[in-house]
This record gives sequence, C-alpha cells and structure tokens, in this order.
Amino acid sequence: MAAELTAHQLIAKHRSTLDQALETISTRAYWSPHPEHPKAYGEDGSLSLPEGKAAFDALQGARFDLDQPGTDDWVGGEVSPYGPELGITYPHPDIDTLLPAMRAGMRAWREAGAETRAMVSLEILARISARTHEMAHAVMHTSGQAFMMAFQAGGPHAQDRGLEAIAYAYAEQTRTPGTAEWHKPQGKRDPLALSKRFTPVPRGISLLIGCNTFPTWNGYPGLFASLATGNPVLVKPHPRAVLPLALTVRIAREVLAEAGFDPNLVCLAAERPGEGIAKTLAVRPEIKIIDYTGSTSFGDWLEANARQAQVYTEKAGVNTVVVDSTDNYKGMLANLAFSLSLYSGQMCTTPQNLLIPRDGIETDAGAKSYDDVVADLAASVSGLLGDDARANGILGALVNPDVKTRLEAAAGLGEVALPSRTITNPDFPDAVVRTPVIVKLDGAKPDAESAYLSECFGPVSFAVAVDSAADAVELLRRTVRDKGAMTVGAYTTSEEVSTAIEETCLEECAQLSLNLTGGVYVNQTAAFSDFHGSGGNPAANAALCDGAFVANRFRVVEVRKDA
Amino acid sequence: MAAELTAHQLIAKHRSTLDQALETISTRAYWSPHPEHPKAYGEDGSLSLPEGKAAFDALQGARFDLDQPGTDDWVGGEVSPYGPELGITYPHPDIDTLLPAMRAGMRAWREAGAETRAMVSLEILARISARTHEMAHAVMHTSGQAFMMAFQAGGPHAQDRGLEAIAYAYAEQTRTPGTAEWHKPQGKRDPLALSKRFTPVPRGISLLIGCNTFPTWNGYPGLFASLATGNPVLVKPHPRAVLPLALTVRIAREVLAEAGFDPNLVCLAAERPGEGIAKTLAVRPEIKIIDYTGSTSFGDWLEANARQAQVYTEKAGVNTVVVDSTDNYKGMLANLAFSLSLYSGQMCTTPQNLLIPRDGIETDAGAKSYDDVVADLAASVSGLLGDDARANGILGALVNPDVKTRLEAAAGLGEVALPSRTITNPDFPDAVVRTPVIVKLDGAKPDAESAYLSECFGPVSFAVAVDSAADAVELLRRTVRDKGAMTVGAYTTSEEVSTAIEETCLEECAQLSLNLTGGVYVNQTAAFSDFHGSGGNPAANAALCDGAFVANRFRVVEVRKDA
Repeated sequence: MAAELTAHQLIAKHRSTLDQALETISTRAYWSPHPEHPKAYGEDGSLSLPEGKAAFDALQGARFDLDQPGTDDWVGGEVSPYGPELGITYPHPDIDTLLPAMRAGMRAWREAGAETRAMVSLEILARISARTHEMAHAVMHTSGQAFMMAFQAGGPHAQDRGLEAIAYAYAEQTRTPGTAEWHKPQGKRDPLALSKRFTPVPRGISLLIGCNTFPTWNGYPGLFASLATGNPVLVKPHPRAVLPLALTVRIAREVLAEAGFDPNLVCLAAERPGEGIAKTLAVRPEIKIIDYTGSTSFGDWLEANARQAQVYTEKAGVNTVVVDSTDNYKGMLANLAFSLSLYSGQMCTTPQNLLIPRDGIETDAGAKSYDDVVADLAASVSGLLGDDARANGILGALVNPDVKTRLEAAAGLGEVALPSRTITNPDFPDAVVRTPVIVKLDGAKPDAESAYLSECFGPVSFAVAVDSAADAVELLRRTVRDKGAMTVGAYTTSEEVSTAIEETCLEECAQLSLNLTGGVYVNQTAAFSDFHGSGGNPAANAALCDGAFVANRFRVVEVRKDA
Repeated sequence: MAAELTAHQLIAKHRSTLDQALETISTRAYWSPHPEHPKAYGEDGSLSLPEGKAAFDALQGARFDLDQPGTDDWVGGEVSPYGPELGITYPHPDIDTLLPAMRAGMRAWREAGAETRAMVSLEILARISARTHEMAHAVMHTSGQAFMMAFQAGGPHAQDRGLEAIAYAYAEQTRTPGTAEWHKPQGKRDPLALSKRFTPVPRGISLLIGCNTFPTWNGYPGLFASLATGNPVLVKPHPRAVLPLALTVRIAREVLAEAGFDPNLVCLAAERPGEGIAKTLAVRPEIKIIDYTGSTSFGDWLEANARQAQVYTEKAGVNTVVVDSTDNYKGMLANLAFSLSLYSGQMCTTPQNLLIPRDGIETDAGAKSYDDVVADLAASVSGLLGDDARANGILGALVNPDVKTRLEAAAGLGEVALPSRTITNPDFPDAVVRTPVIVKLDGAKPDAESAYLSECFGPVSFAVAVDSAADAVELLRRTVRDKGAMTVGAYTTSEEVSTAIEETCLEECAQLSLNLTGGVYVNQTAAFSDFHGSGGNPAANAALCDGAFVANRFRVVEVRKDA
C-alpha cells in the first residue's frame, strides 16, 4: 500500500518549522509556530471555537475506538472537575497482545531515519494543532483548568514543548553522520581505509505515564522525544485525564498510517479503576523508556524498580520565593498574587513558601513590616479575584477532592492571613472553585517546619517569617536540597542578596526567576527558551528539554568494513 | 596568586585542537593530534624513550606524593605482570577530609566556564602526551601489555579518547547560549521581555573506578568528561594498576594549580589490600557521577546501589564472530589470528566465540569444512606467534593469575584445536606469557552452552559449530541480548547473511565489523570515529563517546529577570 503522505510532501510542509525550532533552541529567543489566540483558529482546516466544542460534545457518552490490537475491555470513568461525567470508554489492553504488536513496526520506523521521523512527528503535531479547540475542552474537563488556560497550556504551549523535543531528538540523532570514510595514513604503506555506517537505533517501547493536571503539556515532551528517536510509545494516561491523550494517540495513529507506518507505534493503555496498570507495565522487559509526571512516591518507585528502562521523572518539590526588598512593590504584589492564583495553585511550578524577613523589607513604597507584606499580598490576591467571573477564569476548578481536603487542613497550620473563599461558577455549578489561602508560619519554630517543608499541592501558600536575608537563603538551600524545587523566585534590590540567591540556585541546581513584576510569572516557562525543571534536584531527574532528555532514548550502531 | 597559565595563553595553544576535535566527531574521519610512533617523542619538551624509561625507573621503590589533604596512610603493592615489584606507595585518603576538600574549588571551576575548562583539560592532556614514554612503561608494568601496545593504547589512543570526551563535553555545554534576550509580542501592547542567563553547573564529585587492563584508555573518557563539565574527579585506580592513573592525577593537579584552580579538583584514592574502598565511596552522598570498567557483578551492584549518582558502566560481554563465507580466506585467517592474539585476548573487545557452520564454508580458496577452518585458523595463530620475539611483542603478559587459571581450565571444555603454548620473555623471565587456546564446541549440545555463553576473559576462543548461517545469526542474537557484546565480527559474501547479521546488530544494539581482512581488527576502535560499545546491550550502559556520555554530567541553571 502506497503511503498517502510521502516523505517528500512532509519535508516540503514541515522542514522549515524544524529548522526554525533548531535555530531557536540555540538562541533561546522567543518563537512559536502555534498561535495562542483562540481566534487564530477556524481556517485552513483547523477547528473554530464552536466546531471544537461540537467535536468535544460528540465524544461524550461514547466509545473512543482506536482500533488497537488486544483490546479486551472498555473502561473509563472520567468526571469533569466542572461536574459532568464524560461517559467515555476507552480500549483496555491485553498487554501480552498489545506489546508485541507495538514492536512489529519498529524496523520500518527505524529505517525511515531521523528526518522522516521528525517530519511525521511534526505532521502529528500539526493535526493536533488544528484540533486545539477540541483539545482545549478535553483538557479543561479533565484537569479543571479554566478554558483559556486549557486552550493555551493544553494546546499551543504543549505543542511547542512537543516540537522542542522533536528538534532536540533530530539534532541528537544527526550529530553523527550516516556514513564516513576513514583513512589512516601508514607512512609509505597504503593507508588503512574503512567505510562506516552509523544508524540511530531505538531502545524499545517507551511508556508515558500521564498526569491529571497537564496531560498534554507534561506528556508531549516524552512522547515526541521517544517517537522521533524511533521508539514505539505506549500512553498510559491518568485515569481522570484520559481524553486529551486519547485524542493525541488517535491523531498519531492516523498520521502514522497515512505515512505508511504501523499505527501501533503509538497506543493507549487505559485502565480499570484501581488497576494500577502503570506498575505492571513499568517493569515489563519490553518497556525500555519511561516518562512520568506525578507523586514523588511513585516516581521514586519507578526509579528504583524499572531498572530495565531509562526513567525520566518529574515529581513533587517545594517552590520558594524569597522576598527581601523591591523597587516595585505594587508590581511584586500583583505578580505574586497572580502566580499564587493561576489554576488554583495546582501547578508544579506554583510558589508555596514565601520567605519574608520578620523585621520587614525595604520597598519603593517605604519600609514594610512582615505583617504589612503579608496583608498587602492578601489584599492583592483578593483584588485580583474579587470579581467572580475573572476569578473563575484564573482559578479554574480544583482537580480532585484531595486538593480541597489539603486546602481546608492548611487553615489549621498557622494564622490565616487570607482565608480561602468559595466561588460559584455560573456555567458549572458543581465545579469546586476556591481562592488561595495564605497561612503565616514562623520559620524559627521547629513545629512549623513539617508544614512548610512538605509539598502542599493546591492553593496553599505559607508566608514564612525568617530572621534575615541570610536565613532565607539558608532555608532556600535546605528546601531545594532536601525537597527539590521546580522553581525559585526572588525579589531583592540588594546585589549581595541577589548574588547569594543566585549562587544557591547554581549550587543546588534550581531555576531562578528574579524580580518578576510584569506579565511573566515564576510558574510559567516557554518552550525553546526556558528550561522546565533542572534535573539536578529532587523535584525532577530531567529538564524539559535538553540534550540529556533525548540522548539516551536511542543508541548509535556502527557497521564498518574495509573500504 | 596570579595564575601562571592564563586562559588567554591556553586558548592560543589549544583552541585549534578543540576545534579540530569538534569537526572530526561530526565527520568521523581519521584524525589524531597524538603521534603513534615512539620516535615522534623526545623534542619540544616531551620525553624521549630513554628519558621515559629513566623517569619510570625513578618512580619505583618510592612514595608517590600528591600533596593531597586528608592522607592518613601510604599504601600500594603493585607487582608488574612482567615480574618486578614496583615498590611504590600512594596516599590513602581519609575520605571525610578529602571529599569536602575536593568540593572547595568547585565554584571557581564552574565560574571558569566551558571553554576555560576545556583548555585546562587540553593542557593536562598535552602534558600527559609529553610524558607518553614514561606512561608507556607504567601501563606496561601494570597491565601486562607489551611495550608497543602500552605505548600506543596507553598513550596516544587513550589521550585521543580523553580529547574526544572533552570535545563532546564542550559541545554539549555550549549548545545553550550563555545569555538570551526574549521578547514575546503582545499585539498592540509592549512585548513581554526577559533577560536570561544560562550556566552549566556540575553535579558533584565524580568517581572514576579504574580497571587493570587499560587504566588510561578506559579511564580518560570519564575523567575528562566529568572534569570538563565542572565536576571534581576522584580517581580510584585498580590496586594492580595505580601508577598510570597516579601519574595522570599528578599532572592534572599541577596544571590546575598553574592555571589558578584548586588542585584538589582531581585527587587519587588508593586503597589498602582488600579494602574495597570503591564500594564505600560509591554510595557517599557527595559522589554524583561514577565511571566504571570491570566485572559485571560489581557493575550491576553499582547500578543498583549508587542511586545518588549517574552511573556509567562497561562490564563483561561475550563477543562473537560469525564465519559464514569469505572472498579472502587468507586475509580472514590472518585478521582473526591477530585479533585473538593481541594482548593475549585480554581486551573487552576480543572475539570469544567463532560461529562456524558444521557443514563448512565457501571461500576464494575453495570449500572449507568446519575442521579445515578451525585447523587453518590454528595454523594462522601458530604462524603469527611462531617467533618468540614477535609473540612476546603481540601477547604481552597475562595480567593476573585468574587469567592463567581460566586458560588452563578452558582446555577441558572441549576438543582442543590449538593448545596454548608457554613462551619465555628473555627480558622478563617471570612474565607469564601464553599463546591462545582454541577449543571446539558443538553449538547444538546444550552442555556446551555454559562454556560459550559465559565470558571467558583471556586468550581463550571457542570454535562453535552451528547448523547454518541462520543458526549462527540466532545464536548471535541470543548472545548479545542475554550476555552483551562490546564487538561483533562477521565474514560473509552473502548479501542475505550480511543483511541478517546487520539487522541483528541493529536490533540488539551491537557494533559490527564486517569482513575485516586488512590491518584493522575487530578489537580496535579509533577515537573521533568509532564508538566503543553501544550502551544498548548488557555489556555496557554507555558508549565511548557520544552525547549521552556527557549530557547528564552537568545541568543548566537559568536565571531570568524582566528586561
């Protein structure tokens, strides 16, 4: 069967995008081929807002068939954090049938070479991009993100991260040439001469273990890095966030088939309630790569037990912001208020601990006591979220009942500087919407440590009173070293404090945002420019995205002979 | 104290070498800046042959002082495989003193940046190169390699591998720019603008666990990859091969100090007899990277237990040559005979199993039966080693008594096609010199499997009778998959068999040498062009050298602020 999509067509369509991505990861300047504005979609074959909504509606209450081999059951019980049951069922795999079937297409995929694999991967991304409005609803109604965030983070930003991974994978595979002629002089004798051929070869099946909050954004880097380096990818979504990745798998399978490859190179593994299929899959000998985002406990388990695989984990951390001084007090408060509020603090990058000197700070608006800073921040959050419509648009919904439990318990950990408020979402009355709580803790009191040195995932922040900037730096160091951090923020006008914080982040390997007072927030990273995580502290063993994230997903085999 | 060696001087001296190395790893053509011929040394400050010998002699029977902190004892009991006791003692570390001292210079080394680190590393290599004649004796009298091999493999070839690692490390650290300006358009509003700084940061102390047979060749890649990426390196040599790495550490410390860095960035950890200090060091929290060459059992232990570290291992494998057919029978026999004989088969790349169809093979010299092939190979080895002087120059000495024990036991595993012969070394009468044994085994007999499916390190080869080429390919696949392989060789004139063997090597991830009949041997790889190991089968989890070997030895920390 001739492929409907030839490599030639795909190169004509996508090569320039790949080249631009390769260029951008080396300059780290701003670039994205995926529009952020919802109105940018609806032409050139992409779904408009109403078309995306209609497509999402049509998925509900039905089987999501993927025509995968070895389907032995239909499973699924997603309930939107906004209330509705999705009523979608997905194929449940007989893994003894599915895994061998996934390996069948490996040779042709390997033989296609790095460029064709990149082009096919880019076509998958392009088709995902065309369905961004549909994906936005799927992400919104599984993660609880508000629509606009689900659209952007679940759509173009996730696609950017996928493209970035494809670019790194392509660069890594092509830094060794396909062939080489080697001539070693031997004085007056003929030179020694060899002809060599170098082939990037895949490791085996790659397992993606998805998360509930950012199924596409956290999933695409590993998915595309593995696929572009020649590996089949088995996608095991979080049981509460299957749909976004099921849509992704469906599109990938369509494109693979049209390009003449085996669609089983990308498959879905949905699971029965409580089945824990990830644990079974993770130690199968066929699984050679694992990408995981989720709890520290299961991440640690994977690292310890899935010894046959390369394991890339993003786990939990405790993110800190040091508040030492500022020349833009208002900007600082506004920036922090938004960071704490966005998606109800349910980002792995949301600040948790705000370290504030108990003697107060210097600002452009005069000296502010510890209590002033905390009260002003509380007022800033209250102001930001004062309008319910705007609050709903920023907060989204709590992703699961555990977050609500933690939020409620947090109020008992210390003096509440800003109580959490319940907000009604008029469109989705069953959504659980809460504003952040800010709790005061004294860093000098040992009994407060168990609170601020544990990750409290959700809209909970601790205003930790510290003795001094030096004390803050020391606590920052201890927090990153012992608990890990996806992000660190700091506000200071002091060269000395700034240097101490930077040095701490360099030594403890944490990504630092300094004095952000505008429209960029500590919890946001941009593909092609910012690294997400460092891979060098306990929060994650890999960064998105760098050479190390792709280099060990394939190996190079050399065949040499006398020339 | 001002540095005696400035970055400017080092760049003037070494930058062009780095650039040529970077160019060559992307073309994989032949290149080396390190002369292979002993006569090339003796000018421009390098030691001549007699000067090298005199320097080596002066080291014996003395303390090898390195002026390291935390030295609590002097240890060492090296005995040359050629007979003489070296009588050298080395500093034994109090690791609670040494490890903190090694960390003290990390910040300055990190702040020096990737280029200066590369230049200092290149200066270390240049000084090692100047002492190649001294190193040759050190390698010869610890590994048992014959002088010429010790000179080349322990000198220029090892230095090439070190330089290759420095080049990869530099390329990897500089693919992200030092700074970036990021401007994201916001329609009619001002763009979002950030200034970003990216810094490669080290992981921590890197531990090199050296081996007995190739202390420098197998040690330099990890040592220089870690040092060039900013990590201090603690060198734990094999107790029988301390001197080559002690010389290396001494030179590294001198250069570091002259360039204004802390010499304790490179230290030696010699051990007491039976101390097993590697096991203690490997799980210390300060140790973040481990490079290891040695037995599978300790390599597996490191991978399982040194969880706080990135662990790079080269362990044991079973190397296979498939003998299917040839159009150069004489060339094949000569090539194989040399491969089996070089350094008494004590290379991790030496072929062990020769798979030969029991019904014989087609050759340019007519059909040859299985017995013909084995007898002709035996005759070829005997011819190669018939002259004792030449035999001594090829074989070197057995590195330790275990090899001799295995060699003697091998004769009992099957019919001996070529018995091992004792050779006297007139210069070193105590050297244990033996020619290789070739033992016939029947691949169809299950009881033979335990012999040919175990690594039998040393001058032992098995001529395994197989049913057919297809049978050979299947056994090759099983051997690589279950036991690992550093090398695979094959001789065939059949397109079909060649394709099957190549496909097997691509699928099982093994490096293949096809139809070598000239002056290149399956056991030899050249830096900048050939990969040593694949990192994708059980023999080794890394290849020398590629992006994956360096990319995770450092992390990139980003500091961003509003522009």
